[in-house]
Amino acid sequence: MSEEKITVSIVGGSGYAGGELLRILLQHPHVRVKQATSNRNAGQSVSLLHPNLRGLTSLAFVSTADLEPCDLLFLAMPNGESMRSIDRWLSLSGRLIDLGADFRLKDAANWKKWYGTDHAAPRHLADFAPGIPELQADRIREARRVAGPGCEAIVSILSLYPFIKTGMIRAGDIIIDAKMGSSQAGGSPSPGSHHPERAGCVRSYKPTGHRHAAEIEQALSPYAADISVGISATAVEMVRGILVTIHARLSDPKMTEKDAWRALRSEYAGKPFIRIVKQQQGLYRYPEPKILQGTNFCEIGFEKEDGSDRLVILGAIDNLVKGTSGNGVQCMNLMYGWPETCGLEFPGLHPV
Amino acid sequence: MSEEKITVSIVGGSGYAGGELLRILLQHPHVRVKQATSNRNAGQSVSLLHPNLRGLTSLAFVSTADLEPCDLLFLAMPNGESMRSIDRWLSLSGRLIDLGADFRLKDAANWKKWYGTDHAAPRHLADFAPGIPELQADRIREARRVAGPGCEAIVSILSLYPFIKTGMIRAGDIIIDAKMGSSQAGGSPSPGSHHPERAGCVRSYKPTGHRHAAEIEQALSPYAADISVGISATAVEMVRGILVTIHARLSDPKMTEKDAWRALRSEYAGKPFIRIVKQQQGLYRYPEPKILQGTNFCEIGFEKEDGSDRLVILGAIDNLVKGTSGNGVQCMNLMYGWPETCGLEFPGLHPV
Amino acid sequence: MSEEKITVSIVGGSGYAGGELLRILLQHPHVRVKQATSNRNAGQSVSLLHPNLRGLTSLAFVSTADLEPCDLLFLAMPNGESMRSIDRWLSLSGRLIDLGADFRLKDAANWKKWYGTDHAAPRHLADFAPGIPELQADRIREARRVAGPGCEAIVSILSLYPFIKTGMIRAGDIIIDAKMGSSQAGGSPSPGSHHPERAGCVRSYKPTGHRHAAEIEQALSPYAADISVGISATAVEMVRGILVTIHARLSDPKMTEKDAWRALRSEYAGKPFIRIVKQQQGLYRYPEPKILQGTNFCEIGFEKEDGSDRLVILGAIDNLVKGTSGNGVQCMNLMYGWPETCGLEFPGLHPV
Amino acid sequence: MSEEKITVSIVGGSGYAGGELLRILLQHPHVRVKQATSNRNAGQSVSLLHPNLRGLTSLAFVSTADLEPCDLLFLAMPNGESMRSIDRWLSLSGRLIDLGADFRLKDAANWKKWYGTDHAAPRHLADFAPGIPELQADRIREARRVAGPGCEAIVSILSLYPFIKTGMIRAGDIIIDAKMGSSQAGGSPSPGSHHPERAGCVRSYKPTGHRHAAEIEQALSPYAADISVGISATAVEMVRGILVTIHARLSDPKMTEKDAWRALRSEYAGKPFIRIVKQQQGLYRYPEPKILQGTNFCEIGFEKEDGSDRLVILGAIDNLVKGTSGNGVQCMNLMYGWPETCGLEFPGLHPV
Repeated sequence: MSEEKITVSIVGGSGYAGGELLRILLQHPHVRVKQATSNRNAGQSVSLLHPNLRGLTSLAFVSTADLEPCDLLFLAMPNGESMRSIDRWLSLSGRLIDLGADFRLKDAANWKKWYGTDHAAPRHLADFAPGIPELQADRIREARRVAGPGCEAIVSILSLYPFIKTGMIRAGDIIIDAKMGSSQAGGSPSPGSHHPERAGCVRSYKPTGHRHAAEIEQALSPYAADISVGISATAVEMVRGILVTIHARLSDPKMTEKDAWRALRSEYAGKPFIRIVKQQQGLYRYPEPKILQGTNFCEIGFEKEDGSDRLVILGAIDNLVKGTSGNGVQCMNLMYGWPETCGLEFPGLHPV
Repeated sequence: MSEEKITVSIVGGSGYAGGELLRILLQHPHVRVKQATSNRNAGQSVSLLHPNLRGLTSLAFVSTADLEPCDLLFLAMPNGESMRSIDRWLSLSGRLIDLGADFRLKDAANWKKWYGTDHAAPRHLADFAPGIPELQADRIREARRVAGPGCEAIVSILSLYPFIKTGMIRAGDIIIDAKMGSSQAGGSPSPGSHHPERAGCVRSYKPTGHRHAAEIEQALSPYAADISVGISATAVEMVRGILVTIHARLSDPKMTEKDAWRALRSEYAGKPFIRIVKQQQGLYRYPEPKILQGTNFCEIGFEKEDGSDRLVILGAIDNLVKGTSGNGVQCMNLMYGWPETCGLEFPGLHPV
Repeated sequence: MSEEKITVSIVGGSGYAGGELLRILLQHPHVRVKQATSNRNAGQSVSLLHPNLRGLTSLAFVSTADLEPCDLLFLAMPNGESMRSIDRWLSLSGRLIDLGADFRLKDAANWKKWYGTDHAAPRHLADFAPGIPELQADRIREARRVAGPGCEAIVSILSLYPFIKTGMIRAGDIIIDAKMGSSQAGGSPSPGSHHPERAGCVRSYKPTGHRHAAEIEQALSPYAADISVGISATAVEMVRGILVTIHARLSDPKMTEKDAWRALRSEYAGKPFIRIVKQQQGLYRYPEPKILQGTNFCEIGFEKEDGSDRLVILGAIDNLVKGTSGNGVQCMNLMYGWPETCGLEFPGLHPV
Repeated sequence: MSEEKITVSIVGGSGYAGGELLRILLQHPHVRVKQATSNRNAGQSVSLLHPNLRGLTSLAFVSTADLEPCDLLFLAMPNGESMRSIDRWLSLSGRLIDLGADFRLKDAANWKKWYGTDHAAPRHLADFAPGIPELQADRIREARRVAGPGCEAIVSILSLYPFIKTGMIRAGDIIIDAKMGSSQAGGSPSPGSHHPERAGCVRSYKPTGHRHAAEIEQALSPYAADISVGISATAVEMVRGILVTIHARLSDPKMTEKDAWRALRSEYAGKPFIRIVKQQQGLYRYPEPKILQGTNFCEIGFEKEDGSDRLVILGAIDNLVKGTSGNGVQCMNLMYGWPETCGLEFPGLHPV
């Protein structure tokens, strides 16, 4: 850790993930934000689109064509775009963290199955380390390229991992019921994001066939070859946040909540952004996305049904922080050997 | 009142005002909805855009070109459009109720001042009766063409009228602080209506220079030549509803709340859609748009500041019902001699 | 159907279910509301607590001690209270509709298991017909006493019934993931209902062990002896409404969505309050509680996962209407031979 | 600035202001939080009530009786309580910052007028410096006791001060229309805070007679002897935040927006927590509480009405931060000569 700061640029700085990167990196002690691109908003002040940054920065967006070399490049682009210019990004920066989907799936055929197009850069797939610090810290420390996971994927993977690794739950029978805030759909207006339609909704926008199933199965298959997850996603009234209610079955119905505690603690003791939440008292007895807004925490909880093999696992994150940008910064911290929590200390608000 | 139903068609059936008209008219005992136009959605089921009507109607949208003659035509179009085809509408139907702005201002110069374009049909302006049943019932009964008022205008006019007419407040010093739901901006997505931006906002979208000032001054000038209102409009987290907090000054500081009661009662006794709300107890002591959703009520209340000449007048409506479509139906009821409340009996929900 | 109206009274008129009963019954063409009790608010105007009824009624609450005989008595009391005075209710009225839990479970031992106390009137349990009109219309028509189901129970039962009856899904492996509005917890303030804590939450308040499982299993066991449901309930930002996302498994993986359509249509064709919702287009492609506020509809939809035995069934209602009071009125309509939809015609609002 | 930390304790640590103090102080580089009191929750973990602090602190509440001496004591108690034990507080700590109302008004008679009771410690009133750093930084630097202003008061005072000081607006004719989030009413449940009643409301809870008028007039009277403000307060759907829409009249109608800019800049240049917001573009053109959640900023904007003497001034804060606890920490920073922004660097979130 030195006094000198690295230079970081962001491709796709006008979206919500780009905005969160800016918020975090502008206050990161080891980083100087060099450039943020937005072809549509080139020349305009960053704070025009991210009004929380008013007065904090005088940075203006540049077009992608004007990107200069830097120490680390964050890619925060719509799915399918970063792979098309991968050579350009690599020519600009030795280190890449891609927050989009392009380099998450290791198998190009899997990309085609879920995203519907041929992969444009399949030979690069193997170079990207999976960006899940709690599972892959050593690999990320050594990596020069990292692919950040999808927001529903990371909270589901973190919630399931200890139970899958220990074989506590039946890997072939997992249902993830995800409740999602509106920011996960990005910053572009659409009929479905129009406030009178979206406000107060409880909308089944993806009852089956969710792409993140592929990522979750890929991440957990080393621990259970028969892993199979079904996702149903529902939009609820919330801007930031995800809660996954995971419906699982115990491998052995005699297992107890103590076993579940043990599994979680043995994997996650000392992990700074994992909070195991299962309280007897208070209003916030289980993971709750509301109080995680702006934080990099992933809260995980569980409850076993009396007299049944049912185990309900609960996971909550802020989709724009632990689900995207904060997690990317955590990866960066690992890559550079800085404290994992550097720049990510915001504890969240209550009430909010 | 006969068994036979009149035929009513709607130009602009896909917007929010059009949807509310459909909801009300489909259950109106004296009306048969003949056609609803939407050039963009011609051929599609009305209930695709207005999902609350699923199962209630098999009506499909037609294009404007396919409109047929009917007994009464509702115009629910963007401002500036109905005037451009006024001859067409008149050829189709002897009776017109325009819910848009085009025929509200009696003076074409005033239109140009506030809407920025020349008026396309100035010679028709005098033919439209102002659609405020509580002030102009006799004129509406005789009218063949009615111009429904703006939503902020009608709630402000109804709230101010008794106080202006009696001279209780100083007509030259009136501030209307309007709190608005998101549906008043219509059904088209925009950056400002994008849920992550609009949700939870308290946004000063029109601190000064609001067009509805012209309508309010026009409606009240017969009672106070020096009428002058300033409007500041703020968008709040709500889909339907307006609350106007009107900051006024008593002409005579010795006037009391009893005088205010008297003024309201003498104008509004027996008016079925006016509710005077000023309670000592309970949670809903003043007008509250929340419980008026779906109803045609206008709630009016007030409070005098102790030891001051300040009188605060409060008015609340559902902008899509009493502010637009329900009020239009009320005008129709008057035109045909039906009970004023016909089709408008929904009392609203609590809690909601 | 005669011109004469029956007299109906409500025990527990100050709560949310009581308020909805009042709203519906005050506009019901065959009913005169005689009395509504509230021991705490006796003597006060009904509209003080139910402000949507301002101007619609001059009724004041009476204490339970002052209840007089009537033709039909609705009981809208906290769980465990109506059974303690069952003889009193029967002495006042030949017909009873209990909206609480006391007479729902046919087996007194089952009551004790789920509610923790001895049942106070077990010999009356057999006299109450289950109040699910879509399943038990004939029995309700003959009944003098009806027990309305729980709100999560009725939407789950209606959503599951066609699939269970036809054996399409595996009855022993059903997960109900329920998203709930705040009004289901009733009208009494608590730390958990305090706005700064409850607003915007996505809170797992009952991950396992939900009482309504007992009702659902009781209602469906005639069609599948091995029925077993697990419920996880999550509070979301909404006042009225429930969405259940039911995670089921097909008995035969070769079954198709056409089979599901057939099962639903064969049971529900002609049922006025069931809407099957599965659209290719539009924003409201699946059941959506947002647009059902104030209505007695139950929307049911489904989606099969490609290449899997997963069937997701979706059900939505307004918990205070089809989930409680509207459904009770529907039962009353059946008991008296009136049209099933009488007083329940409100189609709901859009947008809202 | 030394390595050694001061010890700070909080009386009233379980409320929302106490929670915000804890959040800020636990990460403050020069502070060690010694104790936080809650008589009701003594012995319980601080993070049980403030779940955002889970994992950040192992502090437990103590009862007030167990308070020990410390370097600085924050008082975060209900109005009227801190004055009753003022001698105790002074015996425990040489420095006091009271976030409640007790020591805000300099004149004990004024206290009685607005709060209805005799002041219990009038001789201490003169010892408390008014806690408005932007107006009174020098006095706060010298002070040992500071009285933090009310949340509506501080945002109104900061918004009005430059205009009053320069005589730009008529001091005798000021209307403050305040839009308030639910957290300003504190952490105790009440019928009015019950989610089904409070959600989505636009409720005139104090149309006239608001106590904060006294504070505002006291703070600004040195600059305009005839200052007189009327406040109308409306609760809107929001947990944190205040927007004040101030309706003012220019002293000289020829004054322009340039004059307003000049007045604001000359007072607030270099003030780290004041942001002047008046943009031609973007969605956040005026002050907006939504994006200030968790921050210590006060955004101020304005608009002059064309052809009129109307000036609308807009001010926004987070009521729990700049409105209460963050402002208190800012005062502490001044008292100790630390950078004014120490511990208060959180820039806020977007979207949120």
